[in-house]
Amino acid sequence: MHTIKIALLGAGTVGSGVIQALSMNADIIAGRSGAYIEIKKILVRDAKKKRPEVNGILLTDNFDEILDDEEISIVVEVMGGLSPARDYMLRSMAAGKHVVTANKDVIAQHLSELYTAANENTVDFLYEASVGGGIPIIKPLKECLTANKISEIMGVINGTTNYMLTKMTEKHISYDAVLRRAQEKGYAEANPSADVDGLDAARKAAILASLAFDTVIEFEDVSVEGISHITEDDIEYGLNLGYVIKLLAVGRNTDDGIDVRVHPVFLPKMHPLASVNGVFNAVFVRGDVIGDAMFYGRGAGALPTASAVVADIIEVVRDIVSGTTGRMKYRIGERKKLCPVEKTRSSYYLRLVVADEPGVLGEIATTFGRAKVSLKSVIQARWTEDGDAEIVAVTHVVTHAAASAAAEALRALPVVREVRSLIRVADGQEDTI
Amino acid sequence: MHTIKIALLGAGTVGSGVIQALSMNADIIAGRSGAYIEIKKILVRDAKKKRPEVNGILLTDNFDEILDDEEISIVVEVMGGLSPARDYMLRSMAAGKHVVTANKDVIAQHLSELYTAANENTVDFLYEASVGGGIPIIKPLKECLTANKISEIMGVINGTTNYMLTKMTEKHISYDAVLRRAQEKGYAEANPSADVDGLDAARKAAILASLAFDTVIEFEDVSVEGISHITEDDIEYGLNLGYVIKLLAVGRNTDDGIDVRVHPVFLPKMHPLASVNGVFNAVFVRGDVIGDAMFYGRGAGALPTASAVVADIIEVVRDIVSGTTGRMKYRIGERKKLCPVEKTRSSYYLRLVVADEPGVLGEIATTFGRAKVSLKSVIQARWTEDGDAEIVAVTHVVTHAAASAAAEALRALPVVREVRSLIRVADGQEDTI
Repeated sequence: MHTIKIALLGAGTVGSGVIQALSMNADIIAGRSGAYIEIKKILVRDAKKKRPEVNGILLTDNFDEILDDEEISIVVEVMGGLSPARDYMLRSMAAGKHVVTANKDVIAQHLSELYTAANENTVDFLYEASVGGGIPIIKPLKECLTANKISEIMGVINGTTNYMLTKMTEKHISYDAVLRRAQEKGYAEANPSADVDGLDAARKAAILASLAFDTVIEFEDVSVEGISHITEDDIEYGLNLGYVIKLLAVGRNTDDGIDVRVHPVFLPKMHPLASVNGVFNAVFVRGDVIGDAMFYGRGAGALPTASAVVADIIEVVRDIVSGTTGRMKYRIGERKKLCPVEKTRSSYYLRLVVADEPGVLGEIATTFGRAKVSLKSVIQARWTEDGDAEIVAVTHVVTHAAASAAAEALRALPVVREVRSLIRVADGQEDTI
Repeated sequence: MHTIKIALLGAGTVGSGVIQALSMNADIIAGRSGAYIEIKKILVRDAKKKRPEVNGILLTDNFDEILDDEEISIVVEVMGGLSPARDYMLRSMAAGKHVVTANKDVIAQHLSELYTAANENTVDFLYEASVGGGIPIIKPLKECLTANKISEIMGVINGTTNYMLTKMTEKHISYDAVLRRAQEKGYAEANPSADVDGLDAARKAAILASLAFDTVIEFEDVSVEGISHITEDDIEYGLNLGYVIKLLAVGRNTDDGIDVRVHPVFLPKMHPLASVNGVFNAVFVRGDVIGDAMFYGRGAGALPTASAVVADIIEVVRDIVSGTTGRMKYRIGERKKLCPVEKTRSSYYLRLVVADEPGVLGEIATTFGRAKVSLKSVIQARWTEDGDAEIVAVTHVVTHAAASAAAEALRALPVVREVRSLIRVADGQEDTI
């Protein structure tokens, strides 16, 4: 059995997971791939830094040492970020090397370009780890659900925010307190924006929607709302109404175009995604042949992510062994019309602070009615410390435009002090969130 | 774009699902596979029977008409049963045709033989639909979890029994009543044995365990217990203790050997498999790199199963288009030592009917103690119509041998009228059911 030599770009969390996984299961992996896999070189920023986990592997801070090494047939990009990762991947392919990557940033913005480069150079190009950590979801979409026209994809695909929302729900603590705890545990960055503002989930949503709907969806096409405005009060009210809150990525193939969004959603407790807790991720897919399917597992972490990266490496090695690299022409659909977020439909939960005066509930209900938003329920929830009243309303399914207009009209009422929350509710009807 | 011609063996439930799926998404499928797919011939028992769903496709009752047709490059076996399906698949491969099958019976008993035939004839051989209906699980095991040493696989993989147990739990109805309802709905056969006695699940468990543990597990290697002895009383007691009952397939790679079983299990309500209800299936996998992962979807039905069959057909067509058929050498591990069921470990739930006499509870607890089975709880649950007492005991984790010996010793006590139930309980500890 011969040996295939590979290089890693990056030795951070995912990189060290890959090193560990390849070493702990070396014999099993060789048996499954038909060759031994050897990491020959690792690109790092500082090649002199001591790295006990990297025993005996050559470290270099010069990408050309990898590019020019003809023994290296697979480049595994686990450095993250747009630049120089994208450039390194393109140059690796141009040099005839196969590329495996875990990089959601690059895939969410440059998938077409990378596909073209892979096709032109007849190399393999795989990126399972870019979405959902270890969960197999890219290959299932590309190879297992191919009989289906997919109408909908929904996912809990950011572990940090899911951990935070789960803890807020279980422990009734504030957003700020849970963010600090997530930062202490290393689940959230010092600057948590990429996670809590939904940007990480939006990148993954773009990738999933591109594959599910045979089109090109880029990061900028995704309508994004984060979780930093979610309060423990909203979570509590939601629980009483039978809902748990999740930051969801939603993709839909609608008559009005492709609709891709990331935002918080109140899900009924019985929904399969409602019990995806903590750092777990799950992706729910609805196709016209398979019906509903769901893929569940750890969405992040060194080893789970390495599970996906190493599976991709093994696939390339199998192709090398059987002489069939570049066998797939990578194919991405045409750009399709996007559905403007205003046209998307959902129930909505609104929480208002109003003056505690007679007739207020009537005035609010009338304002909803004038905005053509019909209400499922409206309750006076409690009094605030200032002696104002807090009102919680849940609407029937309306367009986002109508819900926003209703919120605007409510804000203009003299009795309304504040529209504190406007959160989508999945009411169980199909095709609405 | 050219056309690949295929033949179906069988036009039953799955066969008609395949015809429908290929026709409803013909253009999407052609775009994804790189060729149009045409069903040229269908093997049926009675070629003269009117079949409105088969418009324009040639029906034949003579397999040789398919075998000798050089235009047909893929044979899709959806007839089910061991014979003649196995023979037809082997002869198709010998004639250089690729084979796709949904046949769990053949795969659970003859996988090695079929792999050898596929390798010798350099043809593709795929069987995603043999387990879990539409759920992608075979390909994920073969291609996505390849970095992992898998320690455990657990699944709800029989839709009929899951429908029955779900209904018994929700509606508090008897086994006999729910079986009749399942038969009326077409979920259970007139002779329901294959489902309710766990045989169908055992075949699928053998397939999953073979792939998960790189070995050959055949149907006869699986220890099987069905659900026909489960009563609504047990389900009720279980609910009160915090458990829901599922017929589980369990595979474990233990120090005592490979352990593969199918039997009812009380699962804690929070377990990911506990909320897999009705005709849904799910397979839970634990690997040393990925951690826990789960695959969920419709485990049966014409279209969901066709989703898997057609995905396999598309994979073969892609290989034909790129000239890479037979690229994978199909590889199955050596037979490994099996773990005898007596050595497997679990908590157990026991329900006893005893004489309503003073000191009975003590006598029972002493008997458990002598059998070296320690108890987590023992309660006198209620009186029976005959004035006897019903006792429910839950043990700590013990071997199956110890639990069986305790049940035997209890049966020998003069005060014990009957040991009505002995059901495994997943107590949340790892590696025990």
